[in-house]
This record gives sequence, C-alpha cells and structure tokens, in this order.
Amino acid sequence: MELDKLVHQPTRLQIFTHLYANGETTFSALASALDLTEGNLASHIERMEDADCVTVEKTFVDRKPRTTYELTDRGEALFESHIESLESLIDRIDSDDGSA
Amino acid sequence: MELDKLVHQPTRLQIFTHLYANGETTFSALASALDLTEGNLASHIERMEDADCVTVEKTFVDRKPRTTYELTDRGEALFESHIESLESLIDRIDSDDGSA
Repeated sequence: MELDKLVHQPTRLQIFTHLYANGETTFSALASALDLTEGNLASHIERMEDADCVTVEKTFVDRKPRTTYELTDRGEALFESHIESLESLIDRIDSDDGSA
Repeated sequence: MELDKLVHQPTRLQIFTHLYANGETTFSALASALDLTEGNLASHIERMEDADCVTVEKTFVDRKPRTTYELTDRGEALFESHIESLESLIDRIDSDDGSA
C-alpha cells in the first residue's frame, strides 16, 4: 500500500484534516488550532500550495490584511483517498485480530 | 495531536500493522508481503529494535537459518495508541462533515 508522503507527514496530515473538516480557515486560526509556529505552518502550506492542494486568498478586513486557506478539489481528493488507505489498514487489524 | 514518528513513518506503519495483525513473521515473509527490499526492511526493523518495539529471534530450521520478528508489548502498545490517534482524526472528519 502506497501512503502519499505529501498527506501522510504528521503535521500536514493535521492541516489537511483541519481544512477538510472546517473549510476556509485563516492562517492564525490554523496555527493556533494545531499549535504550530508560524514558520512551521508556512513551510507546510507552501509545500501543499506547490502541489496544488490548497488555495491562498489574501483580503483586507477593516483595512487589516487577512490570509485564508482552503483545500482545492485535488487536495480534498488526495486527502480522501489517503483516509481510505488508513481506514483499510485499520480494518486489517480488526479483521485479523492481531492479539493472537 | 502528537503522531509518533517512529510508528507513523509510512513503511514502518505497515510493518507494525503486519506484525500486529499476523504475529511472529519471518524476514522474507515480511519483505515480500510489504514489497520491500531487504535493505529497506532491515533498516526499519533496526530502528524498531533500537526502540524496543520488536524482538528478533534467530533459529535453524532443517539446518537453515531463520530470522523471525515479533512486536514487543511496548511495540503493540505504541501501535495501538497510534491507531487510536488516527481513528480520532478520522472521526473528526466524519463528525464535522468537511464537505461544507
């Protein structure tokens, strides 16, 4: 079974999960929800953006800059297939009852 | 959420899963079941042994050397808690219905 390293990396898996579960999210909300430093979050988001998995929108709210992120269709599809791989891995454990 | 890198690494996650589901397994059976080169499998097993997660037994069968691997109690416990983390991550997706 091939586990996509872009999605499977521990921090990115949580970024994908948060964006998939919550939709459009600001940089600061994402950083605080996942307890990440800004530098760490920025580097993973850049990797995801390069892979066309997330879109970045920069707007102004009350004249303050606001950056939000959202998974692209490709990002959602990659994440969904990764979750299916993890679920099939977990099912193998339950079905084989590894405690023998 | 902290995802244990020892267990979460894609190849090791599949080694942990296979050993957890099937119990004691020979090196060659593990390499072929997971489609791994001997060098790749050996390096991951060494990492798991260093972390006291797998025991290695060397015996002779019909005068031929046979090496088998089995998760230690610590290895099983680490793997079970990792699977719980993955399951809680997956539950968050289902409960929040990320398709909004």
